[in-house]
Amino acid sequence: MAEGSGLAPTLADLGEWELIERLGAFAPPGQFADDAALLDGRSQRTLVVNTDVLVEGVHFSDATMTAADVGWRAAAANLSDLAAMGCREVLGLTVALVAPAATPWAWVEGVYQGLSAALGCYGGTLLGGDCSGGGQRLLAVTALGRLGADGPIRRRDGYPGDALVSTGPHGLSRLGLAALLQEIPTPPAAPNWRQAGPALLERAVQAHRRPRPRLDAVAALASCRPVGSPWRVAGTDSSDGLAAALKTLTQGSGCDALLERRDLPLDPEMAALAIAESWCLNGGEDFELVLALDPGWARQLIQALPGTRRIGSLTPGSGILRWAGDGSPLADADGSFTHFH
Amino acid sequence: MAEGSGLAPTLADLGEWELIERLGAFAPPGQFADDAALLDGRSQRTLVVNTDVLVEGVHFSDATMTAADVGWRAAAANLSDLAAMGCREVLGLTVALVAPAATPWAWVEGVYQGLSAALGCYGGTLLGGDCSGGGQRLLAVTALGRLGADGPIRRRDGYPGDALVSTGPHGLSRLGLAALLQEIPTPPAAPNWRQAGPALLERAVQAHRRPRPRLDAVAALASCRPVGSPWRVAGTDSSDGLAAALKTLTQGSGCDALLERRDLPLDPEMAALAIAESWCLNGGEDFELVLALDPGWARQLIQALPGTRRIGSLTPGSGILRWAGDGSPLADADGSFTHFH
Repeated sequence: MAEGSGLAPTLADLGEWELIERLGAFAPPGQFADDAALLDGRSQRTLVVNTDVLVEGVHFSDATMTAADVGWRAAAANLSDLAAMGCREVLGLTVALVAPAATPWAWVEGVYQGLSAALGCYGGTLLGGDCSGGGQRLLAVTALGRLGADGPIRRRDGYPGDALVSTGPHGLSRLGLAALLQEIPTPPAAPNWRQAGPALLERAVQAHRRPRPRLDAVAALASCRPVGSPWRVAGTDSSDGLAAALKTLTQGSGCDALLERRDLPLDPEMAALAIAESWCLNGGEDFELVLALDPGWARQLIQALPGTRRIGSLTPGSGILRWAGDGSPLADADGSFTHFH
Repeated sequence: MAEGSGLAPTLADLGEWELIERLGAFAPPGQFADDAALLDGRSQRTLVVNTDVLVEGVHFSDATMTAADVGWRAAAANLSDLAAMGCREVLGLTVALVAPAATPWAWVEGVYQGLSAALGCYGGTLLGGDCSGGGQRLLAVTALGRLGADGPIRRRDGYPGDALVSTGPHGLSRLGLAALLQEIPTPPAAPNWRQAGPALLERAVQAHRRPRPRLDAVAALASCRPVGSPWRVAGTDSSDGLAAALKTLTQGSGCDALLERRDLPLDPEMAALAIAESWCLNGGEDFELVLALDPGWARQLIQALPGTRRIGSLTPGSGILRWAGDGSPLADADGSFTHFH
């Protein structure tokens, strides 16, 4: 065993989820239960705040991303959390930048160009920040936004009978990463992704480098709500993978998920790859919204928002993901996503 | 010259101020001109947001601080920026934590205990955050607060004739750092700080480890404003040192500062040390407020808030700090505070 085990655990011993659980004990009850924090709940235009950190060698590297990609991705990952809370307006970002003194200004400039490009697309401005020398490049970004008049999207608001909906395909970002790293497929665990054609690979690399926060999906959700239906929609984003998103949603709502294997949200061309199902469920960094809502509202959303599909239902349960048909639980992800190696 | 000079400058070539200047070009005009950012200026209760990053080996080390000190200091530094903007209410903090996987949980727990202790004193809650593995321990903290009904404190609002006021002594934190590091005084540049008595050293170590954000000074400022006077007060905090604070204030307001040497804000016992004046002006990390305001209001504040003193005046000028009497400019700080070594 590592020296840190037992009475004096290290962060590696705890793992990311246990660490977040322990840190949540320092916050008000339920504060860490969602993608971002709500403030000022008394007013109609509740403020939403979220912080994400991107570390070189963990979340990005020169091998897979330009500086502008890093900036775009840092902004997009944060704005995706705002979308997952139901934000309708982005106020802006603060950015803490740490980099070795020998870092070229051109790299920093590229990062801020990428951040600005994302703000140009999704709204808000650069609000402020801080910078410091350090041994490793990293960005800690805090995003601020506001809900609309409707209400928030929370993980806890799903009910049995709700339709499970994904706003787009999953697994593309993981395929893009494999292509950028020229990963060597290891049979039999990872069947050959190299069968992917050039058009698919281009989409995959774009998905990895330039993910889109689905603020448009929140707008569509609001505009297609059936007349007279209350605002009740559970959701999260799939930054840690589709299976992880479903897990937080079902655990938050005290339900199981029943998934239709044939309805997994795959890029049609990617579906032909043997690795597709695994990367769809556990690839990570897809930044789509995964929602649970009334089936009638879900049908409206699927019509209104191209790429959206129903992938299953919530059933009474306790946070287990099952396959429709025989009800068997999904296999746990082999390489569960962790930021503490 | 370093390899990064010339057409491809590195961050070390630029230095911190030039870097912030260049990054400010990505934000709306004036956005980086103050200690923190104002949002939602239309409403009475303007939101204020600030981000600070603390890096091990740059801002803290196990040699000088416990984990709880690190957490307290991270919170206090951020809340000090909120105070410097005129905040009357702390909403809370988000915290991005980066640490090597082998970091003991006990260290992280200590940091969050320190953060919580500061929030317990000054208000607000832990709102959320993120964590990741990385090569070096660091915290990026974002604080959110609200102004009162009065208005903000900005660097640009000083006028010639204003009194310059400091809310407390300067240089103690630097003395505390010297004591904790057992710095070897290098004659003749740094006369012997070891003449400091034990009570003074204890105050100095406390000032270094547990700085107090002066939110109380903002409250005092509001409550002692003379009847009929408009809310117009310029200010900043002295996190980078008293001279640096005066520099940003005078440059922001387009004035010079005329300082009374005998009125420098020194701890009375520290005044006996030969190094006192230098560390008072350029020691850094004092986290007091440095304000420019109407002399009548300043007199009220000095009566209302113990430890506050008038240190000089603003005169027409262009951001130069001068000694009253002969008007000679202050010598530039020898070791100007930088985070890019």
